[in-house]
Formats: sequence, C-alpha cells, structure tokens
Amino acid sequence: MTKKLILDLDTGIDDTLAIAYALGSPEVELIGIVGTYGNVLLKQGVRNDLAITDLLGHPEVKVYAGLPHALKKDSFEVLPVSAFIHGDNGIGNVSIPDSSRSVESESGVDFIIDAVKTYGKDLIYVPTGPQTNLAAAIKKAPEIVNEIGKVVLMGGALTVPGNVSPWSEANISQDPDAANDVFRSGITATMVGLDVTLQTLLTYKETQQWRDFDTPAGRFLADVTDFYIKAYETTAPGLGGCGLHDPLAVGVAVDPTLVTTLPINMQVDVEGATRGRTIGDGDRLNDPQKTMQVAVGVDVQRFLSEFMTRITSVAQNK
Amino acid sequence: MTKKLILDLDTGIDDTLAIAYALGSPEVELIGIVGTYGNVLLKQGVRNDLAITDLLGHPEVKVYAGLPHALKKDSFEVLPVSAFIHGDNGIGNVSIPDSSRSVESESGVDFIIDAVKTYGKDLIYVPTGPQTNLAAAIKKAPEIVNEIGKVVLMGGALTVPGNVSPWSEANISQDPDAANDVFRSGITATMVGLDVTLQTLLTYKETQQWRDFDTPAGRFLADVTDFYIKAYETTAPGLGGCGLHDPLAVGVAVDPTLVTTLPINMQVDVEGATRGRTIGDGDRLNDPQKTMQVAVGVDVQRFLSEFMTRITSVAQNK
Repeated sequence: MTKKLILDLDTGIDDTLAIAYALGSPEVELIGIVGTYGNVLLKQGVRNDLAITDLLGHPEVKVYAGLPHALKKDSFEVLPVSAFIHGDNGIGNVSIPDSSRSVESESGVDFIIDAVKTYGKDLIYVPTGPQTNLAAAIKKAPEIVNEIGKVVLMGGALTVPGNVSPWSEANISQDPDAANDVFRSGITATMVGLDVTLQTLLTYKETQQWRDFDTPAGRFLADVTDFYIKAYETTAPGLGGCGLHDPLAVGVAVDPTLVTTLPINMQVDVEGATRGRTIGDGDRLNDPQKTMQVAVGVDVQRFLSEFMTRITSVAQNK
Repeated sequence: MTKKLILDLDTGIDDTLAIAYALGSPEVELIGIVGTYGNVLLKQGVRNDLAITDLLGHPEVKVYAGLPHALKKDSFEVLPVSAFIHGDNGIGNVSIPDSSRSVESESGVDFIIDAVKTYGKDLIYVPTGPQTNLAAAIKKAPEIVNEIGKVVLMGGALTVPGNVSPWSEANISQDPDAANDVFRSGITATMVGLDVTLQTLLTYKETQQWRDFDTPAGRFLADVTDFYIKAYETTAPGLGGCGLHDPLAVGVAVDPTLVTTLPINMQVDVEGATRGRTIGDGDRLNDPQKTMQVAVGVDVQRFLSEFMTRITSVAQNK
C-alpha cells in the first residue's frame, strides 16, 4: 500500500524542494502539508505551500495552519540570517501567483491527530522545521506516539557542530522544549540532521537542467534554488553548493536505505549553556529499546541521483 | 607478530584494570607504561604503575614519566571528585608495597617517539588519561603520525553527555588543546568514549571471583575495584555498577571487533562555552579520508566475558 505522507514545513527554499521531492515520489501520497514558522512566518509559509502546490500541478494537496510560535513563547520573528538564505518571502524573492485556494479550517495539530487515527502505521510524518506542531499533537493525544507509522525529521546535529551556534541546529533551536518532548516521547523517529544533510550538496549545474525544460515549474525550481546556492556562497563559502536538508528527510522517508543510522535514545538540552543541543539521553543509554535512529552516514551519490530523478519529473511538467 | 602495546595512564583504578587486561592478553606485549596526571598526580601514578606491575608479577614492564600537567598550564591539582572515585592514592586507599624499581631515566615523550621508530605499524598506543604526552610527542616528531600503528584512546563523548560537564568528558577536559592537536593531526585513532564505556558495567559479583582465589593479585584487584564500584553508587546511582572505561580501550586495542565504530574526522572544542567537547570537525566533514573511528556501539556481553577471562588469569597468579 502506498504510504501516506504529511509534510510539516516552514517554506522556505529547501522546503520547496521537499514538496517537489514528495510530489515526484510515487511510493508516497502527500495527503497534506502543515505549516509552521521558522524560515518564514507561519502565514507566509502557508501562502507559499498553497502557491507552490498549485504551480507544481497538485492543487489537491491540502494545507493546514500549525502553531505560529514556540510552545513557551508568545511570538516569533524571522531571523535576519533566515531571510538572507531564503529571501524575504521564503522563496528567494521569486514571484509566483497566489493560490485561489485557502488554508483548511481544521487546525494543523488536529489534522495530525486525525491522520494518525485514519492511517495509523501507514502514516509517515516529516517535519522539516521546529517540532512545535508534533509536540502539541502528542500533548493533546499522547496515544498517537504508538499509533503512528514513523517520524522522519530534519533537524539537529549529533556528531557535528550546529549551524546557529556551535551546539545547536536551526530547527531545534527554534523550540528546544518541543523537540525534547518529541525525542523523549518514545515515538519512532529518524533524525536527519546536519550530520548528513551537509554532505548532500547541489550546484548550479543541476539547477540548469530544470531551467532548460522552460516550464513554469522548472524555471521556478531553478530560480529559487539558485538564490539558495548563492546565499550558501556567503554563509558556507567552503562547502561548494547548498545543503539539501529538507529533501533528504523526504528521501529517507521514501527510502530509509539512503542513510546509515545509529539507534539511540535522544534528548534535547533545554537548560544550561547548551540549550538546543541534540544528544543521547544518558538516563536511557542502557535501555535496550531504542526509539530513535540518527542518520550518521548517507549514500551521497544515490541520493543525488534520486533527488534529480524526482525533482526533474516535477520540473518538466508543463 | 605480537603487537607491541604502550599504555599511557593516570593510575587510577580503571587504569589498574587496564594494566591487568593488557597483562592477561597474549595477543599483545606491554612494552612500557607512560605516566600522566589526572586521576592522580604524575608522581603518584608512576609509583602505582611500578608497584602494580610488581604485584601482578610483571616487573619487566618499564615505567616512564610523562608530562606533569596540561600543555598550556604550569601545574595540576587532583579534582576532589577524582580522589573520591579513585581514593587519595589512586588505588582505592589500598596499601601495596612500593616497588624496588625506579622510573626510567628516558622521558615518556621520548620513549613514545623511540618506540614508534622501533616498532612502527606494530605499535599500538593506548592513552587512558589526558592526551598531553602524545600531543607533545607529535609536536616533537610530527612524522610519527604516519609511522605508528594506531592509537586507541579512552576519552571523549560524541553521542552522549560528558561526565565533568554536560559536554565534556574528564580525560579530554584535563587538556582540550592537547586532545585537539591529536585529533586534528591525522593520526589513525579509535576513540573509546563514554558512548560505550558507560554500557560496560562491573558489579561486586564479578570482583568476588577474584577475591576467592585468595592470591595477593586477586585480593588487590577485588579491593580496588570494590572501592570504585562503591564510589559509583554515589556518583552514578542509577547505573548499576562501575564503568569499565580504561580496560575497554585496551580490549578494543586487542580486538577491534568488540565495538562498532563511526568513521569521522574529529576535533575538540578549545574555545567558547563548550571547551572540551569532542565533536566532528565541520571543516573535514566531506573529506573522504576519515582518520578517526569513534566507538558508538559495544558488544557488552562479549567484552565482559573477555574482561573476566583476562583479569582472572592475572588474579589467580600466585
């Protein structure tokens, strides 16, 4: 049976590529997108999700509004570095038409819970921003921890330094409390963090292939990704491309064999100097049941090949 | 050919067990012990090394004095927690006779360099304290990085919190600069850190077997280890035994298949809030050549079985 997929996005350029990867993957059915905050405000992200799914020819994908800020905060502002990397509008300052559709009236948190009740073990949940929505869903309906198929999240850094501080990755740092609640909930989850996403790099050579299709989707995907690669030339000059953070999480959701994983019970530091760090939970080190897998290796060439196949199939749609 | 082994110890109770493990392993020949500081002062550790090798029936093992403090410090004092765990004399306040032998006149650092020149790829170097001596040897004779067989070090914590701070393990924290010099030198090294050593636990049940031999060696090993287990009941009440840190490093030196490892180029944070943290080197993340292996999994039952076999063979010596 085709697995059902929910993306939880702060869209965002690599979120855009995550949508395209999901739509280009016949193994999964994208049943909905839940919006979150991070690269952009919740409202902007939801607007982008609607407009992008339209542009990529999939207006059947419903979009739900998640929570607008961290569990223990009462507001959220986009960091200057996020706007630099993703553009003020989240999609590289590229203009695409607003969708004629609206966000669903059901809340993103309720949609998550309902989808678990409906699809159970056939549901894969892929958050590529803060864990706020999933943590809220678990708080409201704790039983979903055992009922869901699995979570594949983009976030964290176990074996490498963070990207917003030496110990914290951007998504986790937005809401360390929510991520810690998820990590310690016992939910089956694979963490796809900087350990692997900074190994999967895209360059202008690849985006040119999409541009050459001369389709609206191809031009859009090339334009936004080129903006992202250009930002990386400033923020990570030695890297030689842009990191495919969010699409790698979708890739692992579709095909777990793309990464090698370490089974480990994880926590997020919520107190002290290293707030926002993802690290093994010392209290559960010797618990034989490991509920999480952390990706520590990636088959870079195979992922890039899968990535290009799937994004290209979407980009060439007239 | 039998591999040659050098231990670099701050002896210390688990260092004592590391000596016994090495002496009980026919696969390796312990050609010397280099003393360092940490659990005890350098002078006390060297005294213990001489007395312990005598007591265990191996007065042929030469003992060399390493450096007495960290590279960038001019003195060293034993932390109260170290004295609590290892006793004021490093061996659980158990009295054993002084050796009639003296420390060698050659410095520990020169001995390391000479041993590499003599034995090359047949030499395994196992530091279970700070990396100060090895860093000094590499600074004096940088070519040993490529000439040595390998280093198997006890220290660090990659996937779990530290034990002297949430981010730093005790051995590394004594001299983060030295450890960083070693980690970034390109030397072939396996890091055996808290990731695995806190999974290998010993209890009073095992030490009783040594006591039952009614030999000086058996009584000594049981007495010092019981002191260590008792300290763990206070410092790590939930753990259910004492961590076999240093002997596990020797175990891995003898048989690398006891652990599963992650190939990764490592660094030690030497600046900022997380000074003393062992973490992947972001600058060398995509370097295809990985010079270090970090133990992230351990075959606990097989190691404990090997440990008991080898220590018991030493304990029963009349």
